Amino acid sequence: MKRTSRDIRTANRYGVLRHVVAQSPVSRQEVAAATELSPATVANLVGELLDLGMLVEVGYEDSDGGRPRGLVAVNSSGAALIGVDVAETYIHVELFDLALTVLARADEELRPRENDPGKVVAHIADAVSSVVEQAGVAADRVLGVGVSMPGQVDREGGVSVFAANWDWHDVPLLRLLAEHIPYPLYLDNPLRACTVAEQWFGAARGRNDAVVVNLGTGVGAGLALGGTLHRGVSNSAGEWGHTTLVLDGRQCHCGNQGCVETYVGAPGIMRNLRELSPDSPLLHPDDQTATIEALGRGLMEGDPVAVKVVHTTARYLGAALADLINLLNPEVIVLSSWVAAALGEPLLAEVRAAVAGRALRRPLANTEIVLCPIPSNPVSLGAATFALEGSLASVGRKNRRTTPGDRATPRNRATPRDRTTPS
Amino acid sequence: MKRTSRDIRTANRYGVLRHVVAQSPVSRQEVAAATELSPATVANLVGELLDLGMLVEVGYEDSDGGRPRGLVAVNSSGAALIGVDVAETYIHVELFDLALTVLARADEELRPRENDPGKVVAHIADAVSSVVEQAGVAADRVLGVGVSMPGQVDREGGVSVFAANWDWHDVPLLRLLAEHIPYPLYLDNPLRACTVAEQWFGAARGRNDAVVVNLGTGVGAGLALGGTLHRGVSNSAGEWGHTTLVLDGRQCHCGNQGCVETYVGAPGIMRNLRELSPDSPLLHPDDQTATIEALGRGLMEGDPVAVKVVHTTARYLGAALADLINLLNPEVIVLSSWVAAALGEPLLAEVRAAVAGRALRRPLANTEIVLCPIPSNPVSLGAATFALEGSLASVGRKNRRTTPGDRATPRNRATPRDRTTPS
Repeated sequence: MKRTSRDIRTANRYGVLRHVVAQSPVSRQEVAAATELSPATVANLVGELLDLGMLVEVGYEDSDGGRPRGLVAVNSSGAALIGVDVAETYIHVELFDLALTVLARADEELRPRENDPGKVVAHIADAVSSVVEQAGVAADRVLGVGVSMPGQVDREGGVSVFAANWDWHDVPLLRLLAEHIPYPLYLDNPLRACTVAEQWFGAARGRNDAVVVNLGTGVGAGLALGGTLHRGVSNSAGEWGHTTLVLDGRQCHCGNQGCVETYVGAPGIMRNLRELSPDSPLLHPDDQTATIEALGRGLMEGDPVAVKVVHTTARYLGAALADLINLLNPEVIVLSSWVAAALGEPLLAEVRAAVAGRALRRPLANTEIVLCPIPSNPVSLGAATFALEGSLASVGRKNRRTTPGDRATPRNRATPRDRTTPS
Repeated sequence: MKRTSRDIRTANRYGVLRHVVAQSPVSRQEVAAATELSPATVANLVGELLDLGMLVEVGYEDSDGGRPRGLVAVNSSGAALIGVDVAETYIHVELFDLALTVLARADEELRPRENDPGKVVAHIADAVSSVVEQAGVAADRVLGVGVSMPGQVDREGGVSVFAANWDWHDVPLLRLLAEHIPYPLYLDNPLRACTVAEQWFGAARGRNDAVVVNLGTGVGAGLALGGTLHRGVSNSAGEWGHTTLVLDGRQCHCGNQGCVETYVGAPGIMRNLRELSPDSPLLHPDDQTATIEALGRGLMEGDPVAVKVVHTTARYLGAALADLINLLNPEVIVLSSWVAAALGEPLLAEVRAAVAGRALRRPLANTEIVLCPIPSNPVSLGAATFALEGSLASVGRKNRRTTPGDRATPRNRATPRDRTTPS
């Protein structure tokens, strides 16, 4: 019973903006058809977004003999959003306009095993300053900064609860960042960042039930169920990497045995390779990135060992994805992150075949499996989207602190284009 | 984007009625506090339910020096609901008043392998007539009949898509039933019936994220996520029994190997017993019910074989439940159905220990595991609740066909009781 009419209004506002971002310019009628919201609700929400300067009116389209339909588009330059991808060895920051086009990028390298929170915070702050300066955006146009931090995070408290790689426990990351960064800050982890990116810009857009599978060093499954991100009671849903695929199987760093991650995460794939061909030149014993990339190149060249390793990995991955299909009955499963990108279509084809051999007929017939279609870094994009969602969620609340730049001109109208005469 | 303001209003209506059913008599203020809805929304929804004759006003309570607060209660006799539990060997039908108290029961036995749809329909129709007659309820007071049918169902079309035990394919069950039964009909399967029963009357009430695990001949997991039943894109979510626990493990009737069901369903538990002690007197080779009941009695008596079998079963079940905890991060997992009832507290204790050894710390700390607290048959109760939800969902729609009996007297007021003088 925690879902309120404010929540649904916020979700509908996301839905409208998502559709306009993707389809600009677009009529309110098209938005209503695509979102299944009533024309009155859409008119109302579009009005709010125009008032906020997030959308602009851009003219009219012909409408087959009826009255001409007003078109709205996202007001790209109305505001800026920043997304921060904190990883083990680097910090990658991007600044976006409201159409979520990248305007500036900055990278900071982290020394291996650098784990001092103060130093990490300083790197993030430097990169954020850098992108704002590069893009020449006024400070009052920055709607917010979304930070993706690996591991378990308390998003409401802004705390990194546990980050395995750095052995962080309860680091108050947003409080530390707020000492250096003058914009609203939003925290979550890469799994949820990728999922939100797919909901807004990728394969989960317009889908009610989607699963975004992150295949990297670790693996996880972001769950977008009933049109919203399923977080669970303590914001830790999605630990599919630590579900059992082989009872009493391979030892996992979580303490259990046989976890999905030990078979399909990058180190697990390296082990699949080592077990099949211990002396393969594809194997870079201390470098998982190089090994996965070598496998990807091997696939292109038809290297039989690479083909065999991907076949074996797909057998494990297919069984674990069939579990998600049988349990959750999603419309789409998206394979995301760097391992999925490196092994690409050959992995996808093997995985689809393996899933078809295992999932139940009825849910299988309703599930598509695709590679992540987002061409840029989905983590920083998703992190920026957290900032966008955060600023939309605060619309209508008392003392809204930051508003997009064009707010002073309500219903800011761009020069009409594509104007047609009613026939 | 399929969730509309009508959906949320319906969900809120369920929430208010659920709370009043559980706590009658209760003030609007208490309902608002418990449901987190605004006082104005609660007043509005309570008004609707009073108009429908589902609630009645029953007096006032003292309120510590303020104005006396009006109390409302469920109008038990305002309408009747019927729940039908169709199983392999029997049909069990119950008629409930609006407080979901059983007023009448009827059972029909099915001959082994009876699978003719016409005969099954006739048995259901006979049992439904019988409970209406027994209870002496006027036909226009019956809000509807919920039917729980095992297997895959198309609830909107009213079709039994696939029922493995009877080899039914695409049987238009509700259309056939409508020829004999003059009340609105609602179809779903037992997994979802049990889950809805827990949401309304059991351990999932007031919980945002709950998993109801059915342990019977087959096993499944009903998912109540974000406060609503998660159905998936084709209403087949919850097939946890057919997720892989042991890759290449025991052969399952679904065609795969190593499914959860083959280790923790009743036939799986029989196999666990046979592998541990092939000559045990607890084993009734052709009777799973008798075997599980013998194990339950054995546990009471401290029989070492029974204890060992439950320990082994709990190891499998604990791993599979840890998967649900890690993936979904629920507030509560409910162990339901006849195997859970038969093995009871000893199974629960072993399962809790096994889960504690496997689930990740953070989600584990936030999940309770409990036995189903519903004292009656949760399937027929849940099926009746489908009829209640169905009739609530139709409130406000054009041409509502059936209304509860007291509709002619709007805001039907019972004699005030417990009236107190404002202090």
